[in-house]
Amino acid sequence: MGSLNDIGVAAGINILSAVGFLLVFAVVRIQPINDRVYFPKWYLKGTRSSPRHIGNVLSKFVNADVSTYLRFLNWMPAALKMPEPELIEHAGLDSAVYVRIYLLGLKIFVPITVLAFAVLVPVNWTSATLGDDEEGLSYDQIDKLSISNLGPGSERFWVHIGMAYVFTFWTFYVLYHEYKVITTMRLHFLANQNRRPDQFTVLVRNIPVDPDETVGEHVEHFFAVNHREHYLSHQVAYNANALASLVKKKKGLQNWLVYYENQHAKNPEKELTIKTGLWGLWGEKVDALQHYKTTIEELCKQEDEERQKVISDPKAIMPAAFVSFNSQWGAAVCAQTQQTSNPTVWLTEWAPEPRDVYWPNLAIPFVELSIRRLIMAVALFFLTFFFMVPIALVQSVANLDDIERVLPFLKPIIERNGPRSVIQGFLPGIALKIFLIFLPTILMAMSKIEGHVSLSGLERKTASKYFLFIFVNVFLGSVVAGTAFQQLNSFIHQSTNKIPETIGESIPMKATFFITYIMVDGWAGIAAEVLRLKPLIMFHIKNTFLVRTEQDREQAMDPGSLEFGSTEPRIQLYFLLGLVYAVVTPIILPFIIVFFGLAYLVFRHQIINVYNQQYESGAQFWPDVHGRIVTALVISQILLIGLLSTQEADQSTVALLPLPVLAIWFHYVCKGRFEPAYIKFPLQAGSKRILLISSPYITADDIHIVSNVKRELRLMFAGGHGEGHAATGKRPDAEPERVPQGRIRAPRLPQR
Amino acid sequence: MGSLNDIGVAAGINILSAVGFLLVFAVVRIQPINDRVYFPKWYLKGTRSSPRHIGNVLSKFVNADVSTYLRFLNWMPAALKMPEPELIEHAGLDSAVYVRIYLLGLKIFVPITVLAFAVLVPVNWTSATLGDDEEGLSYDQIDKLSISNLGPGSERFWVHIGMAYVFTFWTFYVLYHEYKVITTMRLHFLANQNRRPDQFTVLVRNIPVDPDETVGEHVEHFFAVNHREHYLSHQVAYNANALASLVKKKKGLQNWLVYYENQHAKNPEKELTIKTGLWGLWGEKVDALQHYKTTIEELCKQEDEERQKVISDPKAIMPAAFVSFNSQWGAAVCAQTQQTSNPTVWLTEWAPEPRDVYWPNLAIPFVELSIRRLIMAVALFFLTFFFMVPIALVQSVANLDDIERVLPFLKPIIERNGPRSVIQGFLPGIALKIFLIFLPTILMAMSKIEGHVSLSGLERKTASKYFLFIFVNVFLGSVVAGTAFQQLNSFIHQSTNKIPETIGESIPMKATFFITYIMVDGWAGIAAEVLRLKPLIMFHIKNTFLVRTEQDREQAMDPGSLEFGSTEPRIQLYFLLGLVYAVVTPIILPFIIVFFGLAYLVFRHQIINVYNQQYESGAQFWPDVHGRIVTALVISQILLIGLLSTQEADQSTVALLPLPVLAIWFHYVCKGRFEPAYIKFPLQAGSKRILLISSPYITADDIHIVSNVKRELRLMFAGGHGEGHAATGKRPDAEPERVPQGRIRAPRLPQR
Repeated sequence: MGSLNDIGVAAGINILSAVGFLLVFAVVRIQPINDRVYFPKWYLKGTRSSPRHIGNVLSKFVNADVSTYLRFLNWMPAALKMPEPELIEHAGLDSAVYVRIYLLGLKIFVPITVLAFAVLVPVNWTSATLGDDEEGLSYDQIDKLSISNLGPGSERFWVHIGMAYVFTFWTFYVLYHEYKVITTMRLHFLANQNRRPDQFTVLVRNIPVDPDETVGEHVEHFFAVNHREHYLSHQVAYNANALASLVKKKKGLQNWLVYYENQHAKNPEKELTIKTGLWGLWGEKVDALQHYKTTIEELCKQEDEERQKVISDPKAIMPAAFVSFNSQWGAAVCAQTQQTSNPTVWLTEWAPEPRDVYWPNLAIPFVELSIRRLIMAVALFFLTFFFMVPIALVQSVANLDDIERVLPFLKPIIERNGPRSVIQGFLPGIALKIFLIFLPTILMAMSKIEGHVSLSGLERKTASKYFLFIFVNVFLGSVVAGTAFQQLNSFIHQSTNKIPETIGESIPMKATFFITYIMVDGWAGIAAEVLRLKPLIMFHIKNTFLVRTEQDREQAMDPGSLEFGSTEPRIQLYFLLGLVYAVVTPIILPFIIVFFGLAYLVFRHQIINVYNQQYESGAQFWPDVHGRIVTALVISQILLIGLLSTQEADQSTVALLPLPVLAIWFHYVCKGRFEPAYIKFPLQAGSKRILLISSPYITADDIHIVSNVKRELRLMFAGGHGEGHAATGKRPDAEPERVPQGRIRAPRLPQR
Repeated sequence: MGSLNDIGVAAGINILSAVGFLLVFAVVRIQPINDRVYFPKWYLKGTRSSPRHIGNVLSKFVNADVSTYLRFLNWMPAALKMPEPELIEHAGLDSAVYVRIYLLGLKIFVPITVLAFAVLVPVNWTSATLGDDEEGLSYDQIDKLSISNLGPGSERFWVHIGMAYVFTFWTFYVLYHEYKVITTMRLHFLANQNRRPDQFTVLVRNIPVDPDETVGEHVEHFFAVNHREHYLSHQVAYNANALASLVKKKKGLQNWLVYYENQHAKNPEKELTIKTGLWGLWGEKVDALQHYKTTIEELCKQEDEERQKVISDPKAIMPAAFVSFNSQWGAAVCAQTQQTSNPTVWLTEWAPEPRDVYWPNLAIPFVELSIRRLIMAVALFFLTFFFMVPIALVQSVANLDDIERVLPFLKPIIERNGPRSVIQGFLPGIALKIFLIFLPTILMAMSKIEGHVSLSGLERKTASKYFLFIFVNVFLGSVVAGTAFQQLNSFIHQSTNKIPETIGESIPMKATFFITYIMVDGWAGIAAEVLRLKPLIMFHIKNTFLVRTEQDREQAMDPGSLEFGSTEPRIQLYFLLGLVYAVVTPIILPFIIVFFGLAYLVFRHQIINVYNQQYESGAQFWPDVHGRIVTALVISQILLIGLLSTQEADQSTVALLPLPVLAIWFHYVCKGRFEPAYIKFPLQAGSKRILLISSPYITADDIHIVSNVKRELRLMFAGGHGEGHAATGKRPDAEPERVPQGRIRAPRLPQR
């Protein structure tokens, strides 16, 4: 338990490190050499070109313009300047809504903080139960501002109960309003977008086997009969792994060809030869340009053959297809209805965006899917509560004496005192640290095994799992000391109403710890985020050693993306802390507000200048975000009840009981009111399209778009992956030269 | 705890009373005077006419044919003789599937019983832990056959664990198979039925208010635009309470007219006069026939006026409508999709059968609905756990001394010893008994407040609530003594893993109690059911005092119906008992098998000869039945784990942990596989209809049916009720002379 002084020191250190990061960022980002690291988004959009090509040699690498150093903090107002519609057009709705989570945090907690400091802090402070005369071990100045200062049986608890109601209703109001706004934004976004193929397309899975027809014919006949008036075309999913690897190989060779062509252009006299053997180290010497040209031509032929083979080979055809309709109405009807009396075949759902499809999971049979989900549910339980077991095992095995025995030749190194103590000190922590770094990857792999078919769905499921892990192991694990397994064990041996009491009782004592946590993980962490240390280093390493052509340089710049699955649950921890401590120890709230404000600024800057989203789901994650905040609210209420029931305030505790009931009810109201907009698609909006397309006033442009959608779809889906690539989940850009992807990917600004 | 002897005595008494009931039934049912009580179904079908009109006077009342007495038990084979397709045609799918619940009980428990007696009983019996030398207070012969005989830490528990797995998988298999069969039956039934209006109709609720249009125009325009190709017609729901009361009044007067016409026909000379004043006791004397004729004519006029008024009065129009489509495909599309971007208006769902509509709930706004559900959820919680509080209150108030003080004039009666002790003894029980009798009615009222729009839905929700009540107050209440509130209190003060232990530990000791319960409630109760004592008495009272015309006699005969809401949860109690005791005390199983067998026989007889279902939902309740059996299975597994963990068999307890996980998973698999067939409607089946109706081969007959459906719908729904009748839920047969209801109501036999 730290005193106010301790917190002050910690705050000082963290503020210094955060400011340090920001200062370094301010300086580093205006150096031309780093331009691609801090503005990759603009490069991808094609509106910014490398500053290296202009000016003298020095100015290619270092910014010598002093005036820019004076304006080094102007990225902050710049990040806020872009209006939201423009932001949506620029970065997509997913990103724009994502930063609204931070804004939501501000909206919820700023008024709560003001109220808490106006009402609760004076009430707590003037209750002199924890006086100076007491020699309480775990009480200090922080506690004088917290609910602990009231002492058992105080009448003043009624103030806290009243405030709990006020805070709850305020949170309801803000959440409801935000859900409404974001739903409107989503529907507006979908309605105003250019005709994206996925708005006309339904993903059909579990297509039953027909002995007389191929999958393609079967799909064609089925939809031609059952959706006669709306069916347009279909594209069966192929297992095209061989084709994909050919495409990848060709791309690599093309890059080399470009490199040698550049060399040749610079120095036309020099003969460029390479060796055809392993790694170009031995073998016959040939002319480089000629060699690459002929090899690429060969590969092109092979590719065409492979493509023909994939399309004609029945084994390469997966029992899944993308079926396109001539109207959104037809697609909406097909996606939302059941096709046959057997609900395990012909499963239809809205097709994910082409970029968003997770190809390896398209062909999982129904029964296998449910078995996979069962196994993953059990695995998640064990991962959450027993993850310490294998780590402890590794730790116990990996002590130095054992290593010495197994690998005696390391003895001289280990026996030295310096390394020994360092290793001995770090080793136990390393296993845990490695596990925590890989945790999001592990959870993502579990989501993939569960068989979701879109990347956005995978991210959402990963986020749910990660939130559970953080809640159990970070929040509960910090409040109640001991591993999750020990907690679980003590909880099932404890009476049901004792659990909230145990946790609630330790809540006020952990306030200092969480304040420090917020400063380290929140303040300094966010400031480090904007600096992009890892991509910065990686870019320069690649740039120095690997980059040969302009294309290589573009690939060396990794813009990254928001990674909803691992970042959102960590925001949720702040919501949880804020709601839990709002009534108990309001002193924590300003720290959370600073976090939300700083993070809002930083992430708005990042999505404008850096991140490049892999897909666009149209803010489909919002119901999850909303649901987790409501969960946090219910948890905070139950813990408050637990805390008060240990304070000999039984009557007042009863007054809190309606709160969790109300919160759960609120959740269902919001679910019924808004959630359908994220799952279904309203027929009314879709029916407008039908008039446009099938009316006699159809324009040449409209026809073009429809046929174009067909062609694009066919091309995009033809390069898809099969089951073989379960681990990577990446779809190589098959035939980038032939697919006008820019057309599909670029969202059009809502025209108002 | 009774010994085997005690059980023998109880069994003797109950077998005797059951046989007594059956014997009385066998004799009573063949008396012509009771014919309408025991064969009302056939009267309603019109295939049986009153036997009173033939033969001499005596034979009208008493059956003098001795041979029929010798064949007095032949109703039993007769009940089994009717094949299932005929039964479905005769009694509807709901009833046919309902009796299959009993059959399912036999299918699950007969093999389990055989196995349990072959394996578990010998294993238990030969473990001599509870020997004769012990003076164990609560152990007796029954316990020697139960798991209690093994003693702590016995290795033989592995046999029980193995059997728990075998029983679980057997139950899975039977449940899965049954779900499959019943789903097929349902789809077959729906596909083979005559074109019922509800298969083409969608119920639209929460129609938003349009300032420029009436509700009818608004609906017309909305669906004409959004479902242009399939929209056929619509019928707005009216609040026609005044019209309904006029129709009712006319019906009563018509009955009197028939009575006087009969009187006149018998005795043409006698002048029939009545007085026009109150109850016909005073006022002007007029000719009866003439009076009724003129009054009825007047009422007809009033009715027409009222009908015009209702249709034209905007206040009488409710924001709900039945929208019909020209194909099942169109209706399926509309019912399963979301209409506008605001999911709280234009809510569509499949229209219930016309008989099945619960009119008062059609017009509840969205927000009110969610508030009602919140309140009812809280109310159900209090009803389940605190129902003893008001009853105890009534009991404490209603003691005789208090009554004496408040009503001193009763003193002489109360002070007598005889009545005093009787009343004193009965009074506390009476309040509880009255509550239990009215419980299904209370739960049904709660379901009505929740706002479900169909009678079948109301019954299903009532059944869920009743099952919860029975589980908590009958099952847990018997196992753990004390009121539900005391249990709840002790449970929340107990550690989580102690609860199954506490209950599991007392399970074996309560076997004798439940055996007696099964015999009293199951055996004798079912035998009393077939006798229909209450309808028998009511019929004869009405027949003697109230019946004037043939129509009156028909109404005096109350066929009743299955009342799914109150009977199904009581069957579920037997499933629960069977599954819980299968491993623990298998001796209880034969008693359950006898119950299921007897009940199957009796209810098959009843649905053939007696019950007349109010509606036909097409076995829509099966997912609920299935879900509750799986719930019972999970409960039984958790209690077995609790029981074994008190027997120092910790390792073996762990071996049981996968069972509940598997059962929950099984539930989700079945849900995904079959449940959509009960909620959605496959488009494939519907699309066949579209070809029939809109194809060029359309026949005159088809057109007739379509237009007929329109007309019938309009007529049926025009007589609907408004909000005023919230309590009764009955829809008077408005204009029975004009609506060809028989056409719609009679299901057609599936043609194979």
